[in-house]
Amino acid sequence: MNGRIVDLNADMGESFGRWQLGDDAALLRIVSSANVACGFHAGDPSVLLSTCRSAAANGVVIGAQVGYRDLAGFGRRFMDVDPDELTADVLYQLSALDGLARVAGSKVRYLKPHGALYNAVVTHESQAAAIVTAITKYDASLPVLGLPDSALLRIAAEQGLRTVAEAFADRAYTAEGTLVSRREPESVLFDPHAVAERVLRIVTAGEVVAITGETVSVRPDSICLHSDTADAALIAAAVRSRLDDSDIRVRSFV
Amino acid sequence: MNGRIVDLNADMGESFGRWQLGDDAALLRIVSSANVACGFHAGDPSVLLSTCRSAAANGVVIGAQVGYRDLAGFGRRFMDVDPDELTADVLYQLSALDGLARVAGSKVRYLKPHGALYNAVVTHESQAAAIVTAITKYDASLPVLGLPDSALLRIAAEQGLRTVAEAFADRAYTAEGTLVSRREPESVLFDPHAVAERVLRIVTAGEVVAITGETVSVRPDSICLHSDTADAALIAAAVRSRLDDSDIRVRSFV
Amino acid sequence: MNGRIVDLNADMGESFGRWQLGDDAALLRIVSSANVACGFHAGDPSVLLSTCRSAAANGVVIGAQVGYRDLAGFGRRFMDVDPDELTADVLYQLSALDGLARVAGSKVRYLKPHGALYNAVVTHESQAAAIVTAITKYDASLPVLGLPDSALLRIAAEQGLRTVAEAFADRAYTAEGTLVSRREPESVLFDPHAVAERVLRIVTAGEVVAITGETVSVRPDSICLHSDTADAALIAAAVRSRLDDSDIRVRSFV
Amino acid sequence: MNGRIVDLNADMGESFGRWQLGDDAALLRIVSSANVACGFHAGDPSVLLSTCRSAAANGVVIGAQVGYRDLAGFGRRFMDVDPDELTADVLYQLSALDGLARVAGSKVRYLKPHGALYNAVVTHESQAAAIVTAITKYDASLPVLGLPDSALLRIAAEQGLRTVAEAFADRAYTAEGTLVSRREPESVLFDPHAVAERVLRIVTAGEVVAITGETVSVRPDSICLHSDTADAALIAAAVRSRLDDSDIRVRSFV
Repeated sequence: MNGRIVDLNADMGESFGRWQLGDDAALLRIVSSANVACGFHAGDPSVLLSTCRSAAANGVVIGAQVGYRDLAGFGRRFMDVDPDELTADVLYQLSALDGLARVAGSKVRYLKPHGALYNAVVTHESQAAAIVTAITKYDASLPVLGLPDSALLRIAAEQGLRTVAEAFADRAYTAEGTLVSRREPESVLFDPHAVAERVLRIVTAGEVVAITGETVSVRPDSICLHSDTADAALIAAAVRSRLDDSDIRVRSFV
Repeated sequence: MNGRIVDLNADMGESFGRWQLGDDAALLRIVSSANVACGFHAGDPSVLLSTCRSAAANGVVIGAQVGYRDLAGFGRRFMDVDPDELTADVLYQLSALDGLARVAGSKVRYLKPHGALYNAVVTHESQAAAIVTAITKYDASLPVLGLPDSALLRIAAEQGLRTVAEAFADRAYTAEGTLVSRREPESVLFDPHAVAERVLRIVTAGEVVAITGETVSVRPDSICLHSDTADAALIAAAVRSRLDDSDIRVRSFV
Repeated sequence: MNGRIVDLNADMGESFGRWQLGDDAALLRIVSSANVACGFHAGDPSVLLSTCRSAAANGVVIGAQVGYRDLAGFGRRFMDVDPDELTADVLYQLSALDGLARVAGSKVRYLKPHGALYNAVVTHESQAAAIVTAITKYDASLPVLGLPDSALLRIAAEQGLRTVAEAFADRAYTAEGTLVSRREPESVLFDPHAVAERVLRIVTAGEVVAITGETVSVRPDSICLHSDTADAALIAAAVRSRLDDSDIRVRSFV
Repeated sequence: MNGRIVDLNADMGESFGRWQLGDDAALLRIVSSANVACGFHAGDPSVLLSTCRSAAANGVVIGAQVGYRDLAGFGRRFMDVDPDELTADVLYQLSALDGLARVAGSKVRYLKPHGALYNAVVTHESQAAAIVTAITKYDASLPVLGLPDSALLRIAAEQGLRTVAEAFADRAYTAEGTLVSRREPESVLFDPHAVAERVLRIVTAGEVVAITGETVSVRPDSICLHSDTADAALIAAAVRSRLDDSDIRVRSFV
């Protein structure tokens, strides 16, 4: 980001069969990058194809949000998957979504891990490497989206992949610039206005106020908006509106 | 087939996690086309990637064997899936396998439905059309493998797809040239020598002796060898040996 | 029903993992019988245990709503399951829910098939018999809830099971007393007031006005309220209120 | 065990749909306790019902072998399941199998965790407590089978459950009496004669020779025979034969 352009990303395609989740239609008018589920933690093929079509129609870039094979847990439970199996699982998900995206007139342009896998690869070297191996084998030009200073982005960079670091619009930060655990009080911000101001400051000034009051440097390539809370679309709209009003351009990093 | 060349196809990649099924290694030295499962009726990503690699290493052409989403039933139970959902399910499976095949240095070169879906689309027009739609959207150059005179091959041809009709090496035929139901006695042949002779006659003479004694014309583009019985590899080897001894070349139809 | 007492039943426990469905809390204050999912079409163990506890706390009778093994299709797609397998599938679901219900201080008091299985066993003799076999083996004192004149209720009665016939609060009827297909226009009623009046007339007079205007005799043992539409709780509340105002007592059939 | 009586346990019911695993028929003539899968890591309802019937016919006691919800991983991958969810998952599996066992004329008489869950609850306090909670709620008279000195058996005992400690017939032991990790060389014994002698010494003398040569005290209530290797039935038969020849009676601990 150069202070006048920012990518907004959000999770999509997380409905499954009879079960609806998230207001994808609203978010697709707001974000520039859609982290589309790939069927392992959420998203049946019909949902995924439809989501890819909507993303394409809205000019939103499609990323593959790969996860653990755990529908019942929505991919939010760490699984001690063997790295070789994880590489194959990622390849399967990535391939499946890419095919659907191409049928929809687009294609997968980046990869982002979901849920417990996202959290695991902050420190879990072999699972992080397994994801990087999958991308390298599939298409080494695909950027990987993740947490700054994570094992995933470090190993991806070492292997020559483009890395995209993200910040979270609605999460509290520590003085060290890391996320406050969701288990802590006030770790998540719910006020649309406050979240919008926070994003604007991250984008324009590269800084965020930590939960303990210090000003911390944060220079992400993308901002993650949450999609699965009741107020998700409302908060996302507030962020987008604040950015538009400040002449910040919302545009994908690819 | 011109009487001196024939394609042999067999199902592959039907293991799942801890469960092994079929002797893929043996069959890959015999057949020219591998109908590789895509994860819905069988085949986890690790199995599928490994199968694609073995197929590529053996110079065997990879086809996507798509099925109903029914692991517990191995895709052998008819499911009244909505055509639009079936199209998405086929696209998902086809894309996933194609990606794995490409990582293995090959690619999906044809599509064949599995189990109850295979049987359904002999007559089920809307499910047959749903499969054709998926192929057309994904890659209209992919041939579709199926039963002669099936709704699937008819609709595929109408839509401009290349069709490949198959005969079964070990199944009894009626005087009308259709398969004797598995529920009938003597519907399946188990003697390797008899099966091998039968295949040779189909290939060289374009005919098969019906269960009622008549000689019936059968001119397939491919011969299906079963893979999941105890003697499958033995029978397949007998067929291949008989063909080799008769200077019939085993080669993919693509 | 004697004209002053009626059972109201509705589907419950159909959330799954991250995905919420239905307003069970609201419905449990309205109905007398809860058709609780059993994990095959919907309902993970945590949801089912929680639903059983809420039902028990509200004095609502628990029924096992068994379905096809099809999470992606929510059990709404016919599956050609072998009768012996279906019997085992029903036994597994029934046992699992009964155990959870007992831990919650209650128990399963009846069985009702769900979705496509419910529709299938109106005419599908062998699947209907498979369900009856499961109940007979598990607990022959369990009533079975279904459509009047269905194969299921007929076979259940033949095997000595208690049968409970239900009418639908919000569905249009033909002059023959059968349901108008959902594919027809005006097959479903959405006006809470109209639905409430309809239920009242069914209960007190044993009759309903057909879509073509005739008065048809309908004498159910239970009234089914839908639970998975946006207005489900609203309609249910209107029905209950109308019954309460008319001094009709809502009470389980068991 | 008093030196003349021993329980032999082995895993059963681990086939799934088309996929066969283990020689249950052979093992049921050898063991006194069958750890029957419950559908989460293996075992479809038809397999489980059939296994319960065979166990009942052979006079073999049925235990519920509960696992993580992970068919693709056969329950062999640690999952960070929330304790409350794990309790519900265990209750669901236990209930389902108990119902099937009762239909088969028997019932569940003990519980044993499977695979990665078995390993996890050696040290994972909250998952161990979650299992104990499930048993306590379901039937506090059910013994729990596990590793001596595990968190599971300790917490179970604290909560008043009967605990049953097992030794492994074919695993190497350290000088401290713990199992040598499967990743180490010679951690598993494959020679039927050697395994049989080892079991005899454990039963009669309460001791085993460690991999480093020391004699270690081992006084289990049950001996676990593996079931899923190629030679499983052969080794089990050798053990049983050696015990029979030594007038050691094989009998369940319940």
